[in-house]
Amino acid sequence: MKFKLIAQDGKARAGIIETDHGLIETPIYMPVGTQGTVKATEQRELIELGAQIILGNTYHLYLRPGMEVIEQAGGLHHFMNWQKPILTDSGGFQVFSLTALRDIADNGVTFRSHLDGSQHVFTPESVIQIERQLGADIMMVFDECTPYPCEFEYAKKSNEMTLRWAERCIIAKEKQPALYGHSQALFGIVQGSVYPEIREMSARALTKLELEGYAIGGLAVGEPLEEMYRMTEFTEQFLPTDKPRYLMGVGTPENMLESIERGVDMFDCVIPTRNGRNGMLWTRDGTINIRNAQYKTDFTPVDTECDCYTCRTFTRSYLRHLFVTKEILALQLASIHNLSLFLWIVRESRNAILEKRFAEWKTTMLARFQVSSTVSEQPSISFI
Amino acid sequence: MKFKLIAQDGKARAGIIETDHGLIETPIYMPVGTQGTVKATEQRELIELGAQIILGNTYHLYLRPGMEVIEQAGGLHHFMNWQKPILTDSGGFQVFSLTALRDIADNGVTFRSHLDGSQHVFTPESVIQIERQLGADIMMVFDECTPYPCEFEYAKKSNEMTLRWAERCIIAKEKQPALYGHSQALFGIVQGSVYPEIREMSARALTKLELEGYAIGGLAVGEPLEEMYRMTEFTEQFLPTDKPRYLMGVGTPENMLESIERGVDMFDCVIPTRNGRNGMLWTRDGTINIRNAQYKTDFTPVDTECDCYTCRTFTRSYLRHLFVTKEILALQLASIHNLSLFLWIVRESRNAILEKRFAEWKTTMLARFQVSSTVSEQPSISFI
Repeated sequence: MKFKLIAQDGKARAGIIETDHGLIETPIYMPVGTQGTVKATEQRELIELGAQIILGNTYHLYLRPGMEVIEQAGGLHHFMNWQKPILTDSGGFQVFSLTALRDIADNGVTFRSHLDGSQHVFTPESVIQIERQLGADIMMVFDECTPYPCEFEYAKKSNEMTLRWAERCIIAKEKQPALYGHSQALFGIVQGSVYPEIREMSARALTKLELEGYAIGGLAVGEPLEEMYRMTEFTEQFLPTDKPRYLMGVGTPENMLESIERGVDMFDCVIPTRNGRNGMLWTRDGTINIRNAQYKTDFTPVDTECDCYTCRTFTRSYLRHLFVTKEILALQLASIHNLSLFLWIVRESRNAILEKRFAEWKTTMLARFQVSSTVSEQPSISFI
Repeated sequence: MKFKLIAQDGKARAGIIETDHGLIETPIYMPVGTQGTVKATEQRELIELGAQIILGNTYHLYLRPGMEVIEQAGGLHHFMNWQKPILTDSGGFQVFSLTALRDIADNGVTFRSHLDGSQHVFTPESVIQIERQLGADIMMVFDECTPYPCEFEYAKKSNEMTLRWAERCIIAKEKQPALYGHSQALFGIVQGSVYPEIREMSARALTKLELEGYAIGGLAVGEPLEEMYRMTEFTEQFLPTDKPRYLMGVGTPENMLESIERGVDMFDCVIPTRNGRNGMLWTRDGTINIRNAQYKTDFTPVDTECDCYTCRTFTRSYLRHLFVTKEILALQLASIHNLSLFLWIVRESRNAILEKRFAEWKTTMLARFQVSSTVSEQPSISFI
């Protein structure tokens, strides 16, 4: 993997990540394909929408279909037939947020599956093995994502463990070669909750390990937005400029604009698809709840400026009808549109950076978005 | 609407139906778009699959979104953005099968909505008005679809009422002009349960009314397959050769082959999409339940001879994973594939008729299908 910084506008950056599965133009939003599919969206539709890289979740894929199936398929790219880049998380976030009865020790984490209660162990070494079997272009180190709020002492100790785990991941990566002939990069994850001194320590230590990219983790976990921006801004200064920076689990279009301004290159978040499935649609002029009665005879597109299949083809009236009647097509069309808007935001941000007008673009868009969205806690609809 | 009989091979027919929304090559299978969407399938995908006409359900669309919305949208074609032909049923089947507390009188049927219990009345006149508002290229007359089994006397009386209703539909159609500038044909429906003498009476009387096409209704409602074929074969002889014949609610690929051989031109059925959503996939060599463990590491397509997006792109192993993990993409890919196979069956049947080799084609395919499928009673998965 290579990263090239193409342009800078203030702290906002435009770059190119080169992988064996193709180029990624940054800043980039990565649609989340938790279980080997970006929910309700076909792979060819992701291509049509301009998705350049998607995310896969190590924890979920490890449990189902399991590594035996993935390895026999020739890795995740072949299993799901997605031939552009993939990033896999380390499973850490899910192990700490989804599972019960977990036991965290310096060696690793023992946990019970949220599906059947079966017991498993994730260690830095086993996670690297799984990520090798998945064959992601970008692997993440195994880390502990601290919750919010989090005591200073816990955050400090946790981060020290995360740093030791990062070193073990690097060694494990060297010992376990790639399985499918393409190269796999490894990114470190800066933790430290909302404590600047831990964040600084974490970033400095990880930078010394010369990883191929750096994520800012442990944010977007419930802290106030201002804390998230403050920590992102603070952490950024300790990260090398010649490596990509990835703000994990973020966020809304507004969150992305604010973070791009603070020097972030990569984002992932489930909200466009998850909230889309609940009828929340993003437009260039704020979000709408398409179920509302006001759209009953609104025969305009969701967003008149959008060129996605949903907006090119269907009206708000039709989409509302699909949601009211609980039709699966509602979930498909909402996901397509929201992903389209999220990908448009980062694409236009990149253009603005290249043309040195990012601040103006950001101001214009924030004014248009009007209502400040936050990372939504709305539960996803269970469809089967 | 015009119908042209192009070729005949035994009783099997190849024809062309010309509508203001384009041509329909028969024999044809019509995907069912109950609520203004063929479930889990995008309109552009229907085009890609070669769908030439889809069906809309009058009862469901009347309740939601309601005729006010549909009329303001400029009809169902515009509402759902489907610019090829549409056929709407009369609502009769749903009124008799879905609703409670219905009161059948010669004037019409009073029923309560299955959604909210609200009371409504369907008469031949009101149904024609609704079908005018929907703007279907082919409208069906309001009929009573008798259940199976059904006493002779009830079936006879019911059919006499259905015939009176057909006459009233014709008059209503003349009085209520088309709303959207394109012409709308009206088809009659032969009833008579499994009683040849009622079927003959029904077919003869309807033929005299010179409708633009004739459906065989009241079959595929639980009677033995052999009864269905026997009634279809018996009824066909009384239908004019210069009008299309539509066997309502039928059926599996095998049912369609048997019925094409008996002179049927048009079919509709929810099984490819409904059963697809339950993991039942049709192949040229029989049906498979994709959830089965045997497909866990089966990296072949669902059907190696199929050229649909699902089969071109994904493996049985991946599809099984999507079903096991309850992913929405499972429903999309299964629907695409099954619709593709159903549309392929009628397309190839047409080619075989044109080349005077239908009997041979049918024998070959029935041998390949091996297991005789019947219209499945499997319930659909409720996804929200």
